Amino acid sequence: MEDDLMQNTNLEQDFLLFLKEIQGYKEALALMEWDSRTISPANALESKADVIGFFSTKIHKLSTSKKMGDFLKELKKKSNNDVLHEIIRVCEEDYSRSSKIPAEEYQEFVTLQSKAEIAWQEARNKNDFSILSPYLQKLVDFNKQFANYWGYEDQPYDALLHEFEPGMTTKKLDAIFSKLKKDLVALLTEIKHSTKDNHTFSLNESFEKNEQNDFIVYTLKKMGYDFNRGRIDETIHPFEITINPDDVRITTRYDESDFRMALFSTIHEAGHALYEQNIDKKYANTPVFDGASMGIHESQSLFWENFIGRHPLFWKNNRDDFLRNAPKSFKKVSFDDFYKQINEVKASFIRIEADELTYCLHIILRYEIEIALINGELKVEEIPKLWNDKMEAYFGIRPKNDLEGVLQDIHWATGDFGYFPTYALGYMYAAQLYQKASEEIKIEELIEENDLIQIKAWLSEKVHQLK
Amino acid sequence: MEDDLMQNTNLEQDFLLFLKEIQGYKEALALMEWDSRTISPANALESKADVIGFFSTKIHKLSTSKKMGDFLKELKKKSNNDVLHEIIRVCEEDYSRSSKIPAEEYQEFVTLQSKAEIAWQEARNKNDFSILSPYLQKLVDFNKQFANYWGYEDQPYDALLHEFEPGMTTKKLDAIFSKLKKDLVALLTEIKHSTKDNHTFSLNESFEKNEQNDFIVYTLKKMGYDFNRGRIDETIHPFEITINPDDVRITTRYDESDFRMALFSTIHEAGHALYEQNIDKKYANTPVFDGASMGIHESQSLFWENFIGRHPLFWKNNRDDFLRNAPKSFKKVSFDDFYKQINEVKASFIRIEADELTYCLHIILRYEIEIALINGELKVEEIPKLWNDKMEAYFGIRPKNDLEGVLQDIHWATGDFGYFPTYALGYMYAAQLYQKASEEIKIEELIEENDLIQIKAWLSEKVHQLK
Repeated sequence: MEDDLMQNTNLEQDFLLFLKEIQGYKEALALMEWDSRTISPANALESKADVIGFFSTKIHKLSTSKKMGDFLKELKKKSNNDVLHEIIRVCEEDYSRSSKIPAEEYQEFVTLQSKAEIAWQEARNKNDFSILSPYLQKLVDFNKQFANYWGYEDQPYDALLHEFEPGMTTKKLDAIFSKLKKDLVALLTEIKHSTKDNHTFSLNESFEKNEQNDFIVYTLKKMGYDFNRGRIDETIHPFEITINPDDVRITTRYDESDFRMALFSTIHEAGHALYEQNIDKKYANTPVFDGASMGIHESQSLFWENFIGRHPLFWKNNRDDFLRNAPKSFKKVSFDDFYKQINEVKASFIRIEADELTYCLHIILRYEIEIALINGELKVEEIPKLWNDKMEAYFGIRPKNDLEGVLQDIHWATGDFGYFPTYALGYMYAAQLYQKASEEIKIEELIEENDLIQIKAWLSEKVHQLK
Repeated sequence: MEDDLMQNTNLEQDFLLFLKEIQGYKEALALMEWDSRTISPANALESKADVIGFFSTKIHKLSTSKKMGDFLKELKKKSNNDVLHEIIRVCEEDYSRSSKIPAEEYQEFVTLQSKAEIAWQEARNKNDFSILSPYLQKLVDFNKQFANYWGYEDQPYDALLHEFEPGMTTKKLDAIFSKLKKDLVALLTEIKHSTKDNHTFSLNESFEKNEQNDFIVYTLKKMGYDFNRGRIDETIHPFEITINPDDVRITTRYDESDFRMALFSTIHEAGHALYEQNIDKKYANTPVFDGASMGIHESQSLFWENFIGRHPLFWKNNRDDFLRNAPKSFKKVSFDDFYKQINEVKASFIRIEADELTYCLHIILRYEIEIALINGELKVEEIPKLWNDKMEAYFGIRPKNDLEGVLQDIHWATGDFGYFPTYALGYMYAAQLYQKASEEIKIEELIEENDLIQIKAWLSEKVHQLK
């Protein structure tokens, strides 16, 4: 199929060149975003937000231009090439949604996104939600407006969900999440009252950043993350970003009093990165070079973080390597105790540090707040109280401050509403993939043999390469 | 004057917005160039070169567009604002030169520049000039063609010189350089036969990178380099790059067996950075936000590197701080011996490691080769031999390989011919500035008091802020 692209008509070639031009802007934009979130000098951030806004608008304009519309109309009639068909399908979906938002409004939105992100960091620094609040209210209003532009059958929130998980609806999620919430709250209550909690040691020993990093890099290489086509840097809120198909970066945050923070979040982001490093290159320089949906993308990160990274057999194999640089006290801990503690279940405040059991409860809390915001039943300034009330109701604990609550995540500050549910969906997809991998490649044996590359290869074939 | 910009006519405002748009592209381009030269994953470099080429072309197109021409024509008639006048003057100079190069030819040139830079790195890795040679020949041909487009009175090389040092001519340089060469060669010969070389210790002790870095950061802060508006990273060939007025980055290269490499090259690049961090912000987002000429820019880096950084009084003050992390053997060296050795004069192969006396000889060698190339008297493949012959004639030493010769500098690989002479001019300007500073601010006293910030302030007032 790749060869077919070489024999394209002029129209098709022109179209691919046009997409490559858009991709050039996207590449610059991704690098500027990476830079802003990792290493940029502090004083330059505000003016960078302007330039980021300018580029986002430029991309939006090109993706919704008459030129794009004309290309799509003409090519749909003529093209009988499978690769191109898929490219056209994705461009059309994007074109159709994007062109419903007026250009100026979109420009305002992206400038606001960047500024809100800076406000979020400042709000975190000062532990003051009111710094972020006015930006957030505007972002909510934009999202409500976008939902109207995009249209929906049942609820406005469906229109937002579609952006991240095409085909998913509030109705479906309500059904899944209400059952899940009931069961999880019950299970968590039971665990809280259990007397089995018997660990007598702490994993919160001081563990120097550079020492942590050795095992992280070792693990990433085991997983098949290609350092010639990526790199790892530090940030506040870890993320994966694709600059181009040969530059897929991950970021992490070190907590020297809890190695689990960096280790598991890096394995998580590397799961995303393996997806992006293994998408079929025939889609390079087109919008198809991306995950199938956010839920599917998240299934990859959660698969690696929880189904592999917290698996007892993974630790049986790698514990010695881990212990080499670890605090001395860790060496006295029995394997069972160690394993149990990295899989410990408990009510906690921070989503990205949450265990497998409670994670989806964090998502459901956010989901409920998002729906109330988009339906106009909740004002932004009321979020902190509602957040904390829900934490108390579902987890039995109440945040001391908003850093432990609403200020922990970047997503709303970047204007993304309808994104959080895909994390819970990712969990469910990952569990299904693991089940399938047990049947098809005897995954437990591979973990036991420490042959993670084979697992990556299976995921590449079954998930990364498919469209 | 800044306020005047607020009261501009619509035409003036539109013009400034247009320049800001161009600046957006320049900012993205600068970040991509910085990234490619410092931290980018290796496999991504080639496709990045394409995107860099795309953006350079875009900037070129906008700077030479009919829109730019119309703005300049209209504004010249109307504007009576000093700031705007200066902006128009610089844009017009750029417009006039750039629009003489056909757009496709320019695009080819910039794509070639990026690819040649990659070839240069590969040629260095493999110590094989023939990898770079075909790219270099094309870059020379482009430069010859550009000289024809731009026009010249006397020699084609004059047209290239003008790009970096407006008003400078081959005739003037021939006069200066021929005298300088004669005197320097004579002096170097005399030094070589001197029996005064009596150092009995070595500064080439193993000195760990991180340990070196402490004193470097300390020195940059003393000089007034603002880390909230910049950062320092590693690269092969150190450079300074301005992403935007609040993000002025420098890079360095560590040699653990010779601390002088990183220390003096960093002070050098910081001299450039101080210039860029202190240009009047009323010129931000316009092409005036730049040095007056490359020679003037270089005067700033050389001023700091050699006139301050190698000054005995600087070391009287800071030697203890330096010695804190330095190899133990350094502590036994007397101040005089230490001072003499960091100011040691000797024939050497690498320009950026050269001492004050021999530096200009390195430049004259390159200048002579450039003229021969541009006049068509020399083919690129003949450079290595001619280079080595000249090294032998002027310095009395012959490179063992091209890493010690033609492959050491990046400039030709980035297509810059006519740039090298500005380094020698920078030396002469720096000497004149130092003389002036002795009269106006008693600079020796300031160095003695370790009050380098006052020196920066004087340079900002007398050089950085003037146009």
